[in-house]
Amino acid sequence: MAGQRPGAAIRAGIPEHGRIPKYYAVKTRVAALLDELGEGGTLPTERELATRFEVSRETVRQALRELLLEGRLRRMGRGTVVAGPKLEQPLSLASYTEGVRRQGRRPGRALIGLDRLSCPEGLAPDLGVAAGEPVWHMERVLLADDERVGLESTYVAVARVPSLDTEFAPDSSFYGYLRERLGISFGDADERLETVLATPREALLIGTPPALPMLLIHRVSRDTEGRPLERVRSLYRGDRFSFTTHLRGEG
Amino acid sequence: MAGQRPGAAIRAGIPEHGRIPKYYAVKTRVAALLDELGEGGTLPTERELATRFEVSRETVRQALRELLLEGRLRRMGRGTVVAGPKLEQPLSLASYTEGVRRQGRRPGRALIGLDRLSCPEGLAPDLGVAAGEPVWHMERVLLADDERVGLESTYVAVARVPSLDTEFAPDSSFYGYLRERLGISFGDADERLETVLATPREALLIGTPPALPMLLIHRVSRDTEGRPLERVRSLYRGDRFSFTTHLRGEG
Repeated sequence: MAGQRPGAAIRAGIPEHGRIPKYYAVKTRVAALLDELGEGGTLPTERELATRFEVSRETVRQALRELLLEGRLRRMGRGTVVAGPKLEQPLSLASYTEGVRRQGRRPGRALIGLDRLSCPEGLAPDLGVAAGEPVWHMERVLLADDERVGLESTYVAVARVPSLDTEFAPDSSFYGYLRERLGISFGDADERLETVLATPREALLIGTPPALPMLLIHRVSRDTEGRPLERVRSLYRGDRFSFTTHLRGEG
Repeated sequence: MAGQRPGAAIRAGIPEHGRIPKYYAVKTRVAALLDELGEGGTLPTERELATRFEVSRETVRQALRELLLEGRLRRMGRGTVVAGPKLEQPLSLASYTEGVRRQGRRPGRALIGLDRLSCPEGLAPDLGVAAGEPVWHMERVLLADDERVGLESTYVAVARVPSLDTEFAPDSSFYGYLRERLGISFGDADERLETVLATPREALLIGTPPALPMLLIHRVSRDTEGRPLERVRSLYRGDRFSFTTHLRGEG
Protein backbone atom coordinates (compact mmCIF):
# COMPACT_ATOMS: atom_id res chain seq x y z
CA MET A 1 0.00 0.00 0.00
CA ALA A 2 3.06 2.29 0.23
CA GLY A 3 2.86 3.44 -3.39
CA GLN A 4 -0.90 3.70 -3.33
CA ARG A 5 -2.64 6.71 -4.86
CA PRO A 6 -4.11 8.94 -2.17
CA GLY A 7 -7.76 8.14 -1.54
CA ALA A 8 -7.67 4.85 -3.43
CA ALA A 9 -9.35 1.88 -1.80
CA ILE A 10 -7.24 -0.80 -0.24
CA ARG A 11 -7.81 -4.14 -2.00
CA ALA A 12 -9.63 -2.26 -4.77
CA GLY A 13 -11.05 -4.61 -7.30
CA ILE A 14 -10.43 -7.91 -5.57
CA PRO A 15 -13.79 -9.56 -4.98
CA GLU A 16 -14.06 -11.59 -1.80
CA HIS A 17 -14.56 -14.76 -3.82
CA GLY A 18 -11.11 -14.17 -5.28
CA ARG A 19 -12.05 -14.22 -8.95
CA ILE A 20 -10.85 -11.01 -10.59
CA PRO A 21 -12.42 -10.31 -13.97
CA LYS A 22 -9.71 -10.51 -16.65
CA TYR A 23 -10.31 -6.99 -17.98
CA TYR A 24 -9.99 -5.65 -14.42
CA ALA A 25 -6.63 -7.35 -13.90
CA VAL A 26 -5.49 -5.68 -17.13
CA LYS A 27 -6.91 -2.36 -15.95
CA THR A 28 -4.88 -2.62 -12.72
CA ARG A 29 -1.70 -3.30 -14.70
CA VAL A 30 -2.38 -0.46 -17.15
CA ALA A 31 -3.06 1.86 -14.18
CA ALA A 32 0.37 0.97 -12.76
CA LEU A 33 1.88 1.70 -16.17
CA LEU A 34 0.18 5.13 -16.17
CA ASP A 35 1.83 5.95 -12.84
CA GLU A 36 5.21 5.07 -14.38
CA LEU A 37 4.60 7.10 -17.55
CA GLY A 38 3.42 10.20 -15.68
CA GLU A 39 1.07 12.96 -16.85
CA GLY A 40 1.16 13.54 -20.59
CA GLY A 41 2.97 10.26 -21.28
CA THR A 42 1.78 8.35 -24.35
CA LEU A 43 0.21 4.95 -23.83
CA PRO A 44 1.31 2.03 -26.03
CA THR A 45 -1.27 0.99 -28.64
CA GLU A 46 -4.06 -1.46 -27.90
CA ARG A 47 -2.26 -4.06 -29.96
CA GLU A 48 0.99 -3.62 -28.01
CA LEU A 49 -0.85 -3.83 -24.70
CA ALA A 50 -2.69 -6.97 -25.81
CA THR A 51 0.63 -8.61 -26.69
CA ARG A 52 2.31 -7.46 -23.50
CA PHE A 53 -0.47 -8.72 -21.22
CA GLU A 54 -1.29 -11.77 -23.36
CA VAL A 55 -4.99 -10.95 -23.63
CA SER A 56 -7.35 -10.09 -26.49
CA ARG A 57 -7.61 -6.56 -27.82
CA GLU A 58 -11.25 -6.59 -26.69
CA THR A 59 -10.11 -7.11 -23.09
CA VAL A 60 -7.61 -4.25 -23.40
CA ARG A 61 -10.34 -2.06 -24.89
CA GLN A 62 -12.65 -2.68 -21.94
CA ALA A 63 -9.87 -1.78 -19.48
CA LEU A 64 -9.00 1.41 -21.40
CA ARG A 65 -12.67 2.38 -21.66
CA GLU A 66 -13.01 2.44 -17.87
CA LEU A 67 -9.75 4.37 -17.44
CA LEU A 68 -11.03 6.91 -19.97
CA LEU A 69 -14.40 7.26 -18.22
CA GLU A 70 -12.57 7.75 -14.94
CA GLY A 71 -10.34 10.44 -16.35
CA ARG A 72 -7.06 8.56 -15.95
CA LEU A 73 -6.54 8.62 -19.73
CA ARG A 74 -7.29 11.15 -22.43
CA ARG A 75 -7.57 10.83 -26.19
CA MET A 76 -5.10 13.17 -27.86
CA GLY A 77 -5.31 13.19 -31.65
CA ARG A 78 -4.81 9.55 -32.58
CA GLY A 79 -3.02 8.59 -29.40
CA THR A 80 -3.98 8.14 -25.78
CA VAL A 81 -2.09 9.96 -23.05
CA VAL A 82 -1.97 9.90 -19.26
CA ALA A 83 -4.38 12.55 -17.94
CA GLY A 84 -3.55 15.04 -15.21
CA PRO A 85 -5.47 15.11 -11.93
CA LYS A 86 -9.11 16.17 -11.93
CA LEU A 87 -9.81 19.86 -11.49
CA GLU A 88 -10.95 20.64 -7.96
CA GLN A 89 -13.79 23.11 -7.92
CA PRO A 90 -14.90 24.47 -4.54
CA LEU A 91 -18.61 24.25 -3.75
CA SER A 92 -19.13 27.93 -3.02
CA LEU A 93 -21.00 30.95 -4.23
CA ALA A 94 -17.86 32.02 -6.05
CA SER A 95 -18.32 31.69 -9.79
CA TYR A 96 -16.94 29.00 -12.08
CA THR A 97 -14.55 31.64 -13.41
CA GLU A 98 -12.93 32.21 -10.01
CA GLY A 99 -12.76 28.50 -9.20
CA VAL A 100 -10.91 27.62 -12.39
CA ARG A 101 -8.58 30.61 -12.14
CA ARG A 102 -7.58 29.59 -8.61
CA GLN A 103 -6.09 26.43 -10.12
CA GLY A 104 -4.04 28.27 -12.68
CA ARG A 105 -6.32 27.32 -15.57
CA ARG A 106 -7.86 29.82 -17.97
CA PRO A 107 -11.66 29.83 -17.66
CA GLY A 108 -13.87 30.48 -20.66
CA ARG A 109 -17.47 30.18 -21.76
CA ALA A 110 -19.01 29.75 -25.18
CA LEU A 111 -22.62 30.76 -25.74
CA ILE A 112 -24.90 28.05 -27.09
CA GLY A 113 -28.10 30.01 -26.87
CA LEU A 114 -29.93 32.85 -25.14
CA ASP A 115 -33.71 32.45 -25.29
CA ARG A 116 -36.54 34.48 -23.85
CA LEU A 117 -39.40 32.26 -22.76
CA SER A 118 -42.58 32.27 -20.68
CA CYS A 119 -41.81 31.07 -17.18
CA PRO A 120 -43.14 27.51 -16.69
CA GLU A 121 -45.04 26.68 -13.46
CA GLY A 122 -42.24 24.65 -11.92
CA LEU A 123 -39.64 27.36 -12.36
CA ALA A 124 -41.66 30.37 -11.15
CA PRO A 125 -41.06 30.09 -7.35
CA ASP A 126 -37.30 29.72 -7.85
CA LEU A 127 -37.15 32.91 -9.91
CA GLY A 128 -39.62 34.91 -7.83
CA VAL A 129 -41.97 35.59 -10.75
CA ALA A 130 -45.44 34.42 -11.73
CA ALA A 131 -45.80 31.63 -14.28
CA GLY A 132 -45.97 33.13 -17.75
CA GLU A 133 -43.70 36.09 -17.03
CA PRO A 134 -40.67 36.40 -19.29
CA VAL A 135 -37.46 34.65 -18.24
CA TRP A 136 -34.08 34.24 -19.84
CA HIS A 137 -32.59 30.85 -20.50
CA MET A 138 -28.88 31.15 -21.21
CA GLU A 139 -26.90 28.07 -22.11
CA ARG A 140 -23.11 28.11 -22.21
CA VAL A 141 -20.36 25.57 -22.64
CA LEU A 142 -17.76 25.84 -19.86
CA LEU A 143 -14.12 25.88 -20.93
CA ALA A 144 -10.83 25.41 -19.11
CA ASP A 145 -7.77 26.26 -21.23
CA ASP A 146 -10.01 25.95 -24.31
CA GLU A 147 -11.01 22.42 -23.37
CA ARG A 148 -14.80 21.91 -23.14
CA VAL A 149 -15.48 20.65 -19.62
CA GLY A 150 -19.13 21.40 -18.87
CA LEU A 151 -22.46 22.89 -19.80
CA GLU A 152 -24.36 25.49 -17.82
CA SER A 153 -28.04 26.43 -18.11
CA THR A 154 -29.06 29.60 -16.29
CA TYR A 155 -32.66 30.72 -15.78
CA VAL A 156 -33.22 34.26 -14.55
CA ALA A 157 -36.24 36.62 -14.71
CA VAL A 158 -36.09 39.23 -17.48
CA ALA A 159 -37.40 41.73 -14.89
CA ARG A 160 -34.20 41.19 -12.85
CA VAL A 161 -31.77 41.40 -15.77
CA PRO A 162 -33.59 43.32 -18.51
CA SER A 163 -30.65 43.91 -20.84
CA LEU A 164 -28.96 40.53 -20.63
CA ASP A 165 -29.19 40.09 -24.40
CA THR A 166 -27.53 43.41 -25.28
CA GLU A 167 -25.32 44.33 -22.33
CA PHE A 168 -23.71 41.09 -21.25
CA ALA A 169 -20.67 39.53 -22.91
CA PRO A 170 -21.55 35.83 -22.85
CA ASP A 171 -17.92 34.72 -22.60
CA SER A 172 -17.52 36.59 -19.32
CA SER A 173 -18.65 35.89 -15.75
CA PHE A 174 -22.41 36.29 -15.25
CA TYR A 175 -21.87 36.78 -11.52
CA GLY A 176 -19.32 39.49 -12.23
CA TYR A 177 -21.86 41.20 -14.53
CA LEU A 178 -24.62 41.04 -11.90
CA ARG A 179 -22.31 42.50 -9.26
CA GLU A 180 -20.60 45.19 -11.30
CA ARG A 181 -23.38 46.38 -13.58
CA LEU A 182 -26.52 45.73 -11.55
CA GLY A 183 -25.22 45.83 -7.98
CA ILE A 184 -26.69 42.40 -7.26
CA SER A 185 -24.75 40.19 -4.85
CA PHE A 186 -25.46 36.62 -3.93
CA GLY A 187 -26.74 35.97 -0.44
CA ASP A 188 -27.22 32.23 -0.31
CA ALA A 189 -28.00 29.22 -2.45
CA ASP A 190 -29.21 25.65 -2.21
CA GLU A 191 -27.33 23.10 -4.24
CA ARG A 192 -27.95 19.49 -5.06
CA LEU A 193 -25.29 17.27 -6.65
CA GLU A 194 -25.83 14.01 -8.44
CA THR A 195 -24.23 11.86 -11.09
CA VAL A 196 -26.04 11.48 -14.41
CA LEU A 197 -25.22 10.22 -17.89
CA ALA A 198 -24.63 12.80 -20.60
CA THR A 199 -27.49 12.91 -23.09
CA PRO A 200 -26.55 12.69 -26.77
CA ARG A 201 -27.08 16.45 -27.14
CA GLU A 202 -24.96 17.22 -24.08
CA ALA A 203 -22.25 14.82 -25.18
CA LEU A 204 -22.16 16.53 -28.57
CA LEU A 205 -21.95 20.03 -27.07
CA ILE A 206 -19.25 19.12 -24.56
CA GLY A 207 -17.46 16.75 -26.91
CA THR A 208 -17.57 13.74 -24.58
CA PRO A 209 -18.37 10.13 -25.32
CA PRO A 210 -22.14 9.60 -24.95
CA ALA A 211 -23.23 8.20 -21.58
CA LEU A 212 -20.06 9.49 -19.87
CA PRO A 213 -20.85 9.88 -16.14
CA MET A 214 -21.26 13.57 -15.39
CA LEU A 215 -21.60 15.57 -12.20
CA LEU A 216 -24.79 17.61 -12.25
CA ILE A 217 -25.27 20.52 -9.87
CA HIS A 218 -28.67 22.13 -9.43
CA ARG A 219 -28.46 25.56 -7.85
CA VAL A 220 -31.21 27.89 -6.68
CA SER A 221 -29.84 31.17 -5.39
CA ARG A 222 -31.07 34.31 -3.71
CA ASP A 223 -29.60 37.81 -3.45
CA THR A 224 -28.40 39.41 -0.22
CA GLU A 225 -31.97 40.53 0.52
CA GLY A 226 -33.23 36.98 0.21
CA ARG A 227 -35.05 37.57 -3.08
CA PRO A 228 -35.02 34.63 -5.53
CA LEU A 229 -32.46 35.20 -8.26
CA GLU A 230 -31.60 32.31 -10.56
CA ARG A 231 -31.85 28.61 -11.12
CA VAL A 232 -28.81 26.98 -12.66
CA ARG A 233 -28.20 23.50 -13.99
CA SER A 234 -24.44 22.90 -14.30
CA LEU A 235 -23.13 19.76 -15.86
CA TYR A 236 -19.44 18.92 -15.42
CA ARG A 237 -17.41 16.16 -17.05
CA GLY A 238 -17.11 13.46 -14.39
CA ASP A 239 -13.67 12.52 -15.70
CA ARG A 240 -12.32 16.06 -15.33
CA PHE A 241 -13.88 17.50 -12.17
CA SER A 242 -14.12 16.92 -8.47
CA PHE A 243 -15.79 19.24 -5.97
CA THR A 244 -14.50 20.25 -2.56
CA THR A 245 -16.16 21.63 0.51
CA HIS A 246 -15.16 22.56 4.02
CA LEU A 247 -17.56 21.46 6.74
CA ARG A 248 -17.84 22.90 10.22
CA GLY A 249 -19.34 21.27 13.29
CA GLU A 250 -22.48 22.62 14.82
CA GLY A 251 -21.00 22.91 18.28
CA MET B 1 -42.14 22.06 -20.68
CA ALA B 2 -45.14 22.29 -18.33
CA GLY B 3 -45.00 18.65 -17.28
CA GLN B 4 -41.23 18.63 -17.11
CA ARG B 5 -39.43 16.95 -14.21
CA PRO B 6 -37.85 19.58 -11.96
CA GLY B 7 -34.24 20.18 -12.82
CA ALA B 8 -34.41 18.39 -16.16
CA ALA B 9 -32.76 20.09 -19.10
CA ILE B 10 -34.92 21.75 -21.67
CA ARG B 11 -34.44 20.08 -25.06
CA ALA B 12 -32.59 17.25 -23.32
CA GLY B 13 -31.23 14.79 -25.79
CA ILE B 14 -31.91 16.60 -29.01
CA PRO B 15 -28.57 17.19 -30.70
CA GLU B 16 -28.29 20.43 -32.67
CA HIS B 17 -27.88 18.49 -35.90
CA GLY B 18 -31.33 17.04 -35.25
CA ARG B 19 -30.44 13.34 -35.44
CA ILE B 20 -31.59 11.62 -32.28
CA PRO B 21 -30.07 8.19 -31.70
CA LYS B 22 -32.84 5.59 -31.94
CA TYR B 23 -32.20 4.15 -28.46
CA TYR B 24 -32.45 7.66 -27.03
CA ALA B 25 -35.82 8.28 -28.65
CA VAL B 26 -36.99 5.01 -27.05
CA LYS B 27 -35.48 6.10 -23.72
CA THR B 28 -37.46 9.35 -23.86
CA ARG B 29 -40.70 7.45 -24.55
CA VAL B 30 -40.00 4.91 -21.78
CA ALA B 31 -39.24 7.81 -19.40
CA ALA B 32 -42.67 9.31 -20.20
CA LEU B 33 -44.21 5.89 -19.52
CA LEU B 34 -42.45 5.78 -16.12
CA ASP B 35 -44.02 9.10 -15.19
CA GLU B 36 -47.45 7.64 -16.04
CA LEU B 37 -46.86 4.42 -14.12
CA GLY B 38 -45.60 6.19 -10.99
CA GLU B 39 -43.21 4.91 -8.30
CA GLY B 40 -43.35 1.16 -7.82
CA GLY B 41 -45.23 0.58 -11.08
CA THR B 42 -44.12 -2.45 -13.09
CA LEU B 43 -42.59 -1.86 -16.49
CA PRO B 44 -43.77 -3.97 -19.45
CA THR B 45 -41.26 -6.59 -20.60
CA GLU B 46 -38.50 -5.82 -23.10
CA ARG B 47 -40.39 -7.79 -25.70
CA GLU B 48 -43.59 -5.81 -25.15
CA LEU B 49 -41.71 -2.52 -25.31
CA ALA B 50 -39.93 -3.58 -28.50
CA THR B 51 -43.31 -4.37 -30.11
CA ARG B 52 -44.90 -1.17 -28.85
CA PHE B 53 -42.11 1.09 -30.08
CA GLU B 54 -41.38 -0.97 -33.21
CA VAL B 55 -37.67 -1.33 -32.48
CA SER B 56 -35.34 -4.25 -31.74
CA ARG B 57 -35.05 -5.66 -28.24
CA GLU B 58 -31.39 -4.59 -28.31
CA THR B 59 -32.48 -0.96 -28.72
CA VAL B 60 -34.93 -1.31 -25.82
CA ARG B 61 -32.20 -2.90 -23.72
CA GLN B 62 -29.84 0.05 -24.31
CA ALA B 63 -32.57 2.51 -23.29
CA LEU B 64 -33.41 0.53 -20.14
CA ARG B 65 -29.74 0.18 -19.26
CA GLU B 66 -29.33 3.98 -19.10
CA LEU B 67 -32.56 4.39 -17.10
CA LEU B 68 -31.27 1.78 -14.65
CA LEU B 69 -27.85 3.47 -14.32
CA GLU B 70 -29.63 6.77 -13.72
CA GLY B 71 -31.84 5.32 -11.01
CA ARG B 72 -35.17 5.81 -12.82
CA LEU B 73 -35.74 2.04 -12.84
CA ARG B 74 -34.97 -0.75 -10.40
CA ARG B 75 -34.75 -4.49 -10.82
CA MET B 76 -37.21 -6.20 -8.48
CA GLY B 77 -37.08 -9.97 -8.55
CA ARG B 78 -37.66 -10.80 -12.21
CA GLY B 79 -39.40 -7.56 -13.06
CA THR B 80 -38.39 -3.95 -13.45
CA VAL B 81 -40.20 -1.24 -11.52
CA VAL B 82 -40.26 2.54 -11.48
CA ALA B 83 -37.79 3.76 -8.84
CA GLY B 84 -38.53 6.44 -6.27
CA PRO B 85 -36.57 9.68 -6.15
CA LYS B 86 -32.91 9.58 -5.15
CA LEU B 87 -32.15 9.90 -1.46
CA GLU B 88 -30.94 13.39 -0.61
CA GLN B 89 -28.06 13.32 1.83
CA PRO B 90 -26.87 16.64 3.27
CA LEU B 91 -23.16 17.38 3.01
CA SER B 92 -22.56 18.00 6.70
CA LEU B 93 -20.68 16.67 9.67
CA ALA B 94 -23.85 14.86 10.72
CA SER B 95 -23.44 11.13 10.26
CA TYR B 96 -24.90 8.94 7.56
CA THR B 97 -27.28 7.58 10.18
CA GLU B 98 -28.82 10.97 10.87
CA GLY B 99 -29.03 11.89 7.19
CA VAL B 100 -30.94 8.74 6.25
CA ARG B 101 -33.24 8.96 9.28
CA ARG B 102 -34.18 12.52 8.38
CA GLN B 103 -35.75 11.13 5.21
CA GLY B 104 -37.82 8.57 7.01
CA ARG B 105 -35.60 5.66 5.96
CA ARG B 106 -34.08 3.16 8.36
CA PRO B 107 -30.27 3.42 8.31
CA GLY B 108 -28.10 0.39 8.83
CA ARG B 109 -24.52 -0.78 8.44
CA ALA B 110 -23.03 -4.21 7.90
CA LEU B 111 -19.41 -4.83 8.83
CA ILE B 112 -17.20 -6.16 6.06
CA GLY B 113 -13.96 -6.04 7.98
CA LEU B 114 -12.07 -4.42 10.83
CA ASP B 115 -8.30 -4.61 10.38
CA ARG B 116 -5.43 -3.27 12.41
CA LEU B 117 -2.57 -2.17 10.17
CA SER B 118 0.64 -0.14 10.20
CA CYS B 119 -0.11 3.39 9.10
CA PRO B 120 1.17 3.97 5.54
CA GLU B 121 3.11 7.18 4.77
CA GLY B 122 0.31 8.83 2.83
CA LEU B 123 -2.25 8.36 5.56
CA ALA B 124 -0.17 9.45 8.58
CA PRO B 125 -0.69 13.25 8.41
CA ASP B 126 -4.47 12.83 8.08
CA LEU B 127 -4.61 10.69 11.22
CA GLY B 128 -2.08 12.68 13.24
CA VAL B 129 0.24 9.72 13.79
CA ALA B 130 3.68 8.70 12.53
CA ALA B 131 3.96 6.23 9.67
CA GLY B 132 4.08 2.71 11.07
CA GLU B 133 1.89 3.38 14.09
CA PRO B 134 -1.19 1.16 14.39
CA VAL B 135 -4.40 2.31 12.71
CA TRP B 136 -7.83 0.78 12.32
CA HIS B 137 -9.37 0.22 8.92
CA MET B 138 -13.08 -0.41 9.24
CA GLU B 139 -15.12 -1.21 6.17
CA ARG B 140 -18.91 -1.24 6.28
CA VAL B 141 -21.71 -1.56 3.76
CA LEU B 142 -24.25 1.24 4.15
CA LEU B 143 -27.90 0.23 4.23
CA ALA B 144 -31.18 2.11 3.87
CA ASP B 145 -34.25 0.02 4.71
CA ASP B 146 -32.07 -3.10 4.27
CA GLU B 147 -31.10 -2.06 0.75
CA ARG B 148 -27.34 -1.88 0.19
CA VAL B 149 -26.60 1.67 -0.98
CA GLY B 150 -22.95 2.34 -0.28
CA LEU B 151 -19.61 1.31 1.13
CA GLU B 152 -17.63 3.19 3.77
CA SER B 153 -13.93 2.83 4.64
CA THR B 154 -12.84 4.54 7.83
CA TYR B 155 -9.22 4.96 8.93
CA VAL B 156 -8.56 6.08 12.49
CA ALA B 157 -5.55 5.80 14.81
CA VAL B 158 -5.68 2.96 17.34
CA ALA B 159 -4.30 5.45 19.89
CA ARG B 160 -7.47 7.55 19.46
CA VAL B 161 -9.94 4.67 19.63
CA PRO B 162 -8.13 1.85 21.45
CA SER B 163 -11.11 -0.46 22.02
CA LEU B 164 -12.84 -0.12 18.67
CA ASP B 165 -12.68 -3.88 18.11
CA THR B 166 -14.28 -4.83 21.42
CA GLU B 167 -16.44 -1.89 22.45
CA PHE B 168 -18.08 -0.66 19.28
CA ALA B 169 -21.19 -2.24 17.71
CA PRO B 170 -20.35 -2.09 14.00
CA ASP B 171 -24.00 -1.75 12.96
CA SER B 172 -24.33 1.49 14.93
CA SER B 173 -23.16 5.06 14.31
CA PHE B 174 -19.38 5.48 14.68
CA TYR B 175 -19.86 9.20 15.27
CA GLY B 176 -22.37 8.45 18.03
CA TYR B 177 -19.84 6.07 19.62
CA LEU B 178 -17.04 8.67 19.49
CA ARG B 179 -19.28 11.28 21.05
CA GLU B 180 -20.99 9.21 23.73
CA ARG B 181 -18.22 6.84 24.81
CA LEU B 182 -15.06 8.85 24.16
CA GLY B 183 -16.32 12.42 24.37
CA ILE B 184 -14.87 13.23 20.93
CA SER B 185 -16.82 15.75 18.84
CA PHE B 186 -16.13 16.73 15.26
CA GLY B 187 -14.80 20.22 14.70
CA ASP B 188 -14.38 20.46 10.95
CA ALA B 189 -13.69 18.40 7.86
CA ASP B 190 -12.52 18.72 4.28
CA GLU B 191 -14.48 16.79 1.70
CA ARG B 192 -13.92 16.06 -1.95
CA LEU B 193 -16.64 14.57 -4.15
CA GLU B 194 -16.18 12.86 -7.47
CA THR B 195 -17.86 10.31 -9.68
CA VAL B 196 -16.10 6.97 -10.18
CA LEU B 197 -17.00 3.55 -11.52
CA ALA B 198 -17.60 0.77 -9.02
CA THR B 199 -14.78 -1.77 -9.03
CA PRO B 200 -15.78 -5.44 -9.33
CA ARG B 201 -15.21 -5.91 -5.59
CA GLU B 202 -17.25 -2.84 -4.69
CA ALA B 203 -20.02 -3.84 -7.08
CA LEU B 204 -20.14 -7.26 -5.45
CA LEU B 205 -20.27 -5.86 -1.92
CA ILE B 206 -22.93 -3.28 -2.73
CA GLY B 207 -24.81 -5.51 -5.12
CA THR B 208 -24.70 -3.09 -8.06
CA PRO B 209 -23.99 -3.78 -11.70
CA PRO B 210 -20.22 -3.45 -12.28
CA ALA B 211 -19.10 -0.06 -13.61
CA LEU B 212 -22.21 1.68 -12.22
CA PRO B 213 -21.36 5.37 -11.75
CA MET B 214 -20.87 6.00 -8.04
CA LEU B 215 -20.45 9.13 -5.95
CA LEU B 216 -17.23 8.97 -3.96
CA ILE B 217 -16.66 11.28 -1.00
CA HIS B 218 -13.23 11.62 0.58
CA ARG B 219 -13.37 13.09 4.05
CA VAL B 220 -10.56 14.17 6.36
CA SER B 221 -11.87 15.37 9.70
CA ARG B 222 -10.58 16.94 12.89
CA ASP B 223 -11.99 17.13 16.39
CA THR B 224 -13.11 20.34 18.11
CA GLU B 225 -9.50 20.97 19.21
CA GLY B 226 -8.30 20.76 15.62
CA ARG B 227 -6.53 17.41 16.11
CA PRO B 228 -6.64 15.05 13.09
CA LEU B 229 -9.24 12.35 13.63
CA GLU B 230 -10.17 10.15 10.69
CA ARG B 231 -9.99 9.68 6.95
CA VAL B 232 -13.08 8.23 5.33
CA ARG B 233 -13.77 7.03 1.83
CA SER B 234 -17.53 6.79 1.27
CA LEU B 235 -18.92 5.33 -1.90
CA TYR B 236 -22.61 5.85 -2.66
CA ARG B 237 -24.70 4.33 -5.43
CA GLY B 238 -25.00 7.06 -8.05
CA ASP B 239 -28.47 5.83 -8.99
CA ARG B 240 -29.77 6.12 -5.40
CA PHE B 241 -28.14 9.22 -3.91
CA SER B 242 -27.83 12.93 -4.39
CA PHE B 243 -26.10 15.35 -2.02
CA THR B 244 -27.32 18.73 -0.91
CA THR B 245 -25.58 21.75 0.52
CA HIS B 246 -26.53 25.24 1.58
CA LEU B 247 -24.09 27.95 0.53
CA ARG B 248 -23.73 31.38 2.06
CA GLY B 249 -22.22 34.48 0.48
CA GLU B 250 -19.03 35.93 1.84
CA GLY B 251 -20.44 39.41 2.32
